[in-house]
Amino acid sequence: MPTPASAPQSSPVLHSRPVAYAVRADFFRPSPVRAVFDISMREGMISLAGGNPDLGVLPLDELGAVAGRLIAEHGLEVLQYGTGAGLEPLREAVCEVMSTAGIRAVPGDILITSGSQMGLELVTSLLCDPGDVVLVEAPTYVGAIGTFQGLEADIVHVACDDDGLIPAELERTIAEVRAQGRTIKLLYTIPNFNNPSGITLHPDRRPVVAELCRNAGIALVEDDPYGLLDFWDTPLQAIRSFDESVIYLGSMSKIFSPGIRIGWVLAPRDVRDRLQLAAEATTICPSVLSQHLANIYLREFDWRGYMNRAIDRYHERAQRLDAALAAHLPESVRWTRPHGGFFVWLTLPEGLSAEALLPRGIEEGVVFVPGTAFFGDGSGDGNLRLSFSLESPDRIEEGVRRLARVVTAALEI
Amino acid sequence: MPTPASAPQSSPVLHSRPVAYAVRADFFRPSPVRAVFDISMREGMISLAGGNPDLGVLPLDELGAVAGRLIAEHGLEVLQYGTGAGLEPLREAVCEVMSTAGIRAVPGDILITSGSQMGLELVTSLLCDPGDVVLVEAPTYVGAIGTFQGLEADIVHVACDDDGLIPAELERTIAEVRAQGRTIKLLYTIPNFNNPSGITLHPDRRPVVAELCRNAGIALVEDDPYGLLDFWDTPLQAIRSFDESVIYLGSMSKIFSPGIRIGWVLAPRDVRDRLQLAAEATTICPSVLSQHLANIYLREFDWRGYMNRAIDRYHERAQRLDAALAAHLPESVRWTRPHGGFFVWLTLPEGLSAEALLPRGIEEGVVFVPGTAFFGDGSGDGNLRLSFSLESPDRIEEGVRRLARVVTAALEI
Repeated sequence: MPTPASAPQSSPVLHSRPVAYAVRADFFRPSPVRAVFDISMREGMISLAGGNPDLGVLPLDELGAVAGRLIAEHGLEVLQYGTGAGLEPLREAVCEVMSTAGIRAVPGDILITSGSQMGLELVTSLLCDPGDVVLVEAPTYVGAIGTFQGLEADIVHVACDDDGLIPAELERTIAEVRAQGRTIKLLYTIPNFNNPSGITLHPDRRPVVAELCRNAGIALVEDDPYGLLDFWDTPLQAIRSFDESVIYLGSMSKIFSPGIRIGWVLAPRDVRDRLQLAAEATTICPSVLSQHLANIYLREFDWRGYMNRAIDRYHERAQRLDAALAAHLPESVRWTRPHGGFFVWLTLPEGLSAEALLPRGIEEGVVFVPGTAFFGDGSGDGNLRLSFSLESPDRIEEGVRRLARVVTAALEI
Repeated sequence: MPTPASAPQSSPVLHSRPVAYAVRADFFRPSPVRAVFDISMREGMISLAGGNPDLGVLPLDELGAVAGRLIAEHGLEVLQYGTGAGLEPLREAVCEVMSTAGIRAVPGDILITSGSQMGLELVTSLLCDPGDVVLVEAPTYVGAIGTFQGLEADIVHVACDDDGLIPAELERTIAEVRAQGRTIKLLYTIPNFNNPSGITLHPDRRPVVAELCRNAGIALVEDDPYGLLDFWDTPLQAIRSFDESVIYLGSMSKIFSPGIRIGWVLAPRDVRDRLQLAAEATTICPSVLSQHLANIYLREFDWRGYMNRAIDRYHERAQRLDAALAAHLPESVRWTRPHGGFFVWLTLPEGLSAEALLPRGIEEGVVFVPGTAFFGDGSGDGNLRLSFSLESPDRIEEGVRRLARVVTAALEI
């Protein structure tokens, strides 16, 4: 058999030369969240930046035993190629998960993906030609901006208030963009505990938003990773629950594990079938081992019980964050008060720049994500995102103290 | 906490409506290999169609124990988000894997992907605008055709003989395509035990092919999932070993497990860095659990020993397939005699159609993939691909007997 080549190579190695990239190559941008990821790891740093779930509630020993048995007893299956659609029992299980949000779906409507980010990438790829417009909330998920930009779609923000997307603004924006002769292909919304704003789209607005999209022939993409993480225990009905045109993105990342990379798309059959072809051309199939682990977790574990324990932690941290902001920040600072999810959206006093504050925050030992990350048009520098999902309440409070010193100092200049 | 909604919904559910797809939506095509996948599962069917590795050699109990410990002891890490580049120790380990092919690389040159199909998708996306030409072997990997078509690249085949790509034909094709005013962005080659032909690019031709690409400013993409699966135990030196411009795609699928979906791209630093941004916009990161499992397999298991046992099986099956074809097929049928990999490429007698033979083969209880799957231009119907990777020698022989009946009957009509 081959052994590592140890002898020096006889022919000279040619070095690389300039590459002729595609036009779209310039649209792949570094994620501002990723940029602060390394900084977050520094000794003593308090991170209010990342969106990592708290996995401390998981029954790791039992999950380890399951993974061990899956490979030892069913290795020929779970280590082999799987189907492009994803494991049928898992597709069935995620239908049950979605039933909490009032969604009725069957496994044939579902495509399992390697994380729900991939679902969004596939959907955008299927619907948007370069130059097509996607409407998004102001602000919206940084990863969605990256996907839309990478596929050369034009991002247009729709104004939101404390009840989410403002229907009149949506209507006005649709008319305005169309008057410019541009084609709007989809509305991307995170109706529950929006990342980064924490805001939830009011139930009364949901049918209105859906109808505006239907009438305008715009696909509505409902991204719902946080919907179940509700401190108030009031199941939020998905837009998809009353409109089967909606393309719904689901995720195991916040209710179980992001590291296994399992999400799903629920879409009208023709869309779903085309998405599967695109998915097969990208990853052939999602990790079969991950799919089996997710399936067993949803079927044989008290996953809602573990999730509830995590929600209790998030709730406590959100409360502490809110109290700390009230106690330490200048009165001119405002922030959202989400009843679920991972994030609070902070509005700085007039004239302050979040990007300018970030290096000073890092010096003080606290990191956050400047608001510009969540806009496709460079705006948002008067805002920043704070995460309460992973740090302890005490560290959150200390992080806010550090942030307060930075903000106060900036105001005094 | 939310419980599944059981009461009937008060508002009527709106049904889906037509969707305005992107232009590229029509370029996502069903894979002909996937199409025969379901048929392969039928009772009594002998499949010479799929490209599944034989996992029967793997130490499943030990692997299960590793996976169990990974989750039980390191669950907070392996179930959490990972880095976009991939686990550093795994990037180091795949450098060691590639050293057998004479490649010198460092972890910073590597991007771990959710399977090497994803690597190809990212590379194509980064390099090819719609209408750009990609050069490929005749025939080439069906999944690559799907990726290129999905990204609206134009596929142009370059003629091959028993020693792979014919340099003079490559030169002629480059000139011809350019004379048409078209832009060639990349040459995609599977130099070792090509899927589907089984043919290996002769070592003497490798520098010539690389130089032709360099001089023409065409990126060379070397896809090498089968290179280590060599019956002759003669390490094949990768094109990347002497040309650092080459973009090299590696995979764990054939040397360990396809179900964990782990592959990698080795590319010049600027290309690699841009690929990582595109990868993050697609999947955020590859499965962290899968990466740890692959890393431990490469570091703590005798993976070359297990691979050698699999190679012995493949070798025996390839020999039996060759002997059975010689014994049972009409003399006018020709086929390749690979010394590695998974596939044999069969050329039918003049006038026979592989697509027409397939339904008759299924009636007889044998499936294969018609040659048209491996061309972007509809040609190849005089060929078919036979896989020897998974069925037992006796079943391979019986499959060939069934195929022989179908071919013989078709010749008699």
